[in-house]
Amino acid sequence: MKKSLVALAILAVAGVASAQSSVTLFGVVDATLNFGSGSGVGSSDKTQLGNSGNNSSRIGFSGREDLGKGMSASFHLEAGINNDDGSGSTPAGLNNQGLTATGGGLTFGRRSTVSLASAMGELRLGRDVVPQFYNHIIFNPWGPNGVGNSLTFTSSIGGNGLTGIRASNSFGYFLPGNLGGFYGQGMYFLGENVKDGLPLQANDDNSGKGAAIRFGYANGPINVAFGTSRTMYAKTGTDTTGDITSRNLGGSYNFGVARVMGELSDDKVVRRFTTLTGRGGQIGVSAPMGAGEIRAGYSTYKTDAAGTPRSNKYALGYVHNLSKRTALYTTVARLNNNGGASAALNGAVTAANQSSTGYDFGLRHNF
Amino acid sequence: MKKSLVALAILAVAGVASAQSSVTLFGVVDATLNFGSGSGVGSSDKTQLGNSGNNSSRIGFSGREDLGKGMSASFHLEAGINNDDGSGSTPAGLNNQGLTATGGGLTFGRRSTVSLASAMGELRLGRDVVPQFYNHIIFNPWGPNGVGNSLTFTSSIGGNGLTGIRASNSFGYFLPGNLGGFYGQGMYFLGENVKDGLPLQANDDNSGKGAAIRFGYANGPINVAFGTSRTMYAKTGTDTTGDITSRNLGGSYNFGVARVMGELSDDKVVRRFTTLTGRGGQIGVSAPMGAGEIRAGYSTYKTDAAGTPRSNKYALGYVHNLSKRTALYTTVARLNNNGGASAALNGAVTAANQSSTGYDFGLRHNF
Amino acid sequence: MKKSLVALAILAVAGVASAQSSVTLFGVVDATLNFGSGSGVGSSDKTQLGNSGNNSSRIGFSGREDLGKGMSASFHLEAGINNDDGSGSTPAGLNNQGLTATGGGLTFGRRSTVSLASAMGELRLGRDVVPQFYNHIIFNPWGPNGVGNSLTFTSSIGGNGLTGIRASNSFGYFLPGNLGGFYGQGMYFLGENVKDGLPLQANDDNSGKGAAIRFGYANGPINVAFGTSRTMYAKTGTDTTGDITSRNLGGSYNFGVARVMGELSDDKVVRRFTTLTGRGGQIGVSAPMGAGEIRAGYSTYKTDAAGTPRSNKYALGYVHNLSKRTALYTTVARLNNNGGASAALNGAVTAANQSSTGYDFGLRHNF
Repeated sequence: MKKSLVALAILAVAGVASAQSSVTLFGVVDATLNFGSGSGVGSSDKTQLGNSGNNSSRIGFSGREDLGKGMSASFHLEAGINNDDGSGSTPAGLNNQGLTATGGGLTFGRRSTVSLASAMGELRLGRDVVPQFYNHIIFNPWGPNGVGNSLTFTSSIGGNGLTGIRASNSFGYFLPGNLGGFYGQGMYFLGENVKDGLPLQANDDNSGKGAAIRFGYANGPINVAFGTSRTMYAKTGTDTTGDITSRNLGGSYNFGVARVMGELSDDKVVRRFTTLTGRGGQIGVSAPMGAGEIRAGYSTYKTDAAGTPRSNKYALGYVHNLSKRTALYTTVARLNNNGGASAALNGAVTAANQSSTGYDFGLRHNF
Repeated sequence: MKKSLVALAILAVAGVASAQSSVTLFGVVDATLNFGSGSGVGSSDKTQLGNSGNNSSRIGFSGREDLGKGMSASFHLEAGINNDDGSGSTPAGLNNQGLTATGGGLTFGRRSTVSLASAMGELRLGRDVVPQFYNHIIFNPWGPNGVGNSLTFTSSIGGNGLTGIRASNSFGYFLPGNLGGFYGQGMYFLGENVKDGLPLQANDDNSGKGAAIRFGYANGPINVAFGTSRTMYAKTGTDTTGDITSRNLGGSYNFGVARVMGELSDDKVVRRFTTLTGRGGQIGVSAPMGAGEIRAGYSTYKTDAAGTPRSNKYALGYVHNLSKRTALYTTVARLNNNGGASAALNGAVTAANQSSTGYDFGLRHNF
Repeated sequence: MKKSLVALAILAVAGVASAQSSVTLFGVVDATLNFGSGSGVGSSDKTQLGNSGNNSSRIGFSGREDLGKGMSASFHLEAGINNDDGSGSTPAGLNNQGLTATGGGLTFGRRSTVSLASAMGELRLGRDVVPQFYNHIIFNPWGPNGVGNSLTFTSSIGGNGLTGIRASNSFGYFLPGNLGGFYGQGMYFLGENVKDGLPLQANDDNSGKGAAIRFGYANGPINVAFGTSRTMYAKTGTDTTGDITSRNLGGSYNFGVARVMGELSDDKVVRRFTTLTGRGGQIGVSAPMGAGEIRAGYSTYKTDAAGTPRSNKYALGYVHNLSKRTALYTTVARLNNNGGASAALNGAVTAANQSSTGYDFGLRHNF
């Protein structure tokens, strides 16, 4: 629930003033008891009170000012919270490269933007979600949250944690909303390296620079979208980093009794000497049931690394809404590995080619 | 002063909406000029602008949603502030073990919880105060604040700073409020270690796991409560950590002209090879006087370490309320050591068996 | 735009309550595309999405309580934001010495104070701007922001980043506002070192302790002020730190069609074996033009280090106000070095005695 705190205060205190001006305080506090288990040599299990199993815990401040003539300015500052221990969720890739927030302090790492909007669309500056990431979560029953989420992004080789999800120093553009169901956005972001004319080196001039787009069509029960992103990274002699290209195509159809969705994705990392590719897919369904919703999904991801490691995940969940803002939820997921893969769920460790099982039980409250 | 910001905004902006929904912004900014002096070889004095001499400086956000049928959901996010330098008070024991927030960023380390409540009581998940800690501060005239506070927790061997005060990853339960004066709460918290079936090691499976309870009776002028907590820690060959058990019993009687209070406490640390025990007690009185309050207290704590070190503290203070929200205050305390103890006040250093004196002068403002 | 959120909420919810009590949520989100270039051997250019090119990005909470009889209490908590990446602007000199916030978490490092005010003036405790710094920014068209700001503080040898701008552990006093145009403030701040009677050492007893004053006269079109500060630092054998004294004198005259301003400053660092001095000056003009403002300025700074290094800067800018709260802006600046100086603009690197050019293009939104 978002609330327009200030519109009223201004109206009433000042007597006049623009009702269009508002500051919104919003957030989510979501606590999850989660279990994860693995098997095989060296495996371990884990029980945790985690967070964000249904929706990402956060606190934020946003506002919008009407500038007249169809224009507006707005800001959005949003901090992730690890509410199991009170720390802030410190983002990796603050500079779209190796700079990481540390120490557990709150940052507006989920989003910190200032925007200008008109009938022509919106220009948005700062740190924000990379467009192509949306397809991973909009066409998955769990979005980015909990043990049920999709391997197409949790296993992705596509720079997850640097610019796979969010980018700093970004210039975003959003098409206006009145295009007959067509929507779209683009983003360009800077690595902010020194430009010194020197030849290839660890800190390449373009490292951390990138761009992404997403286009789609939503009309009535149907929603389909394509997204792609590319980020350049220094191609060092150690062959560990390189340019990352990610593409995905997702769609959903709402039958009323249930919403069916799916996504295909591929990622490519072009290093100095070698190239690594990954491919994934997911299908899912969410069905309202009384005050709740049932969710089921399957996702898979494989790469062409030695052995062609691959993981598959099945997940089943239920969300029980106590109100529009508050819900109880549970999810169970099982992940199978082969080709040498050893992905595991909820903090467990599993041996290569072994499976892992995870459970979530949680309480989510929006404010 | 806590304020229901949003209830109104919703009512007025939306015209309808639940008046029961509210978000509260609250806090304390408390600045303290404090002096500490020690004596003997190697001693040093200190003068500081500190904080929280009367009440712990903080900023917080909380809210409550009425779910109908006597049920409600709520959240509480509260960050400690070192307002003398603007940094956040970074909590130790984020994982109930060695993980500490660093760097001075704000965290919701004082409390970050989401709750469900009904006529049966409240279930609370996240980071919160450990129940047994309340007796240390409720039955002390200064609570946890300033140079007058009690040695029963400042000198405690009971894991102060890890789970002696607060615990992360916790499941709390509070009895409902209508039990004829009886009150109580319990807490269980997780260490979140890997469970790997391997034998004893530094990072033991159960390290950081614990539980605590507190039960009491408050009726008219009388209030009495018992609390106990136990946290398990890895028992390593270096014999430095071990399972910690703390117990305390406190009570107070309000004569109107003055409130008299006292507490007994003991702590035990069972390491791999050795056991350490500590015992403490405090008595105190607070008496309203015009717009202010006079406070006096004595506390003592000793352990069975070599020499049976012991410290005693006498403290005297006055709080002058400028309003319900704002106060000036001063406290003086004197601490004596024997048996090899060398506790000191307000950042001073004192030699073994020497005394230390501390003064606080402060301004506290609640919002 | 500052907003009195709570006054209203209290009035309406409680029906009664003091209308004088209020909590204000405020902030600035300012994103700047900036370019910097240098020349000569080893030089490099840089392109960044930065922040605070027009006004310092921040979020803050403040409030004021009327205590009656002309007295009031207030608090102010203000955190700097790097909105290009969402991190907090972590302050150096948390203890007026080497302690620095790290990790990118939010801190109230811009200001965290509690105050008592009466007809006699205001007493303010905590972390705040050092008085002498105001002359650098009030008598400069760009204030402290963007590529156009003044070399009198960006090149200052006066402890910039420790107590050159802000000080922790401070006691501030402000003259009341009704002195016929005369205004003034003083500040005293503590280094909080141990006082141990030992002879000179790295962590000298007085290191980080200091004081500052500022006095001025503002009446109609005229404003003139003098400021000075002194901070003591340990004078170690390595001769790198020492007592810092800064002085400045600034003035402005508003002709209506334009405001003309200027400042002279000097700084001195007295180390154990040597002394370093620096001198600077700036002149500037700002002229309203329709919905915008044109700005022009020149600043210079030189020291008596070997070669007497000196930098000069010319800057020209334009701010276009879309509303009272939102503006587009651009600034261009050129900096010339001689005497071995190598200062550069906007993250560029330039060789000794070479020049540097910088551009800012930005969007600033206040809330």
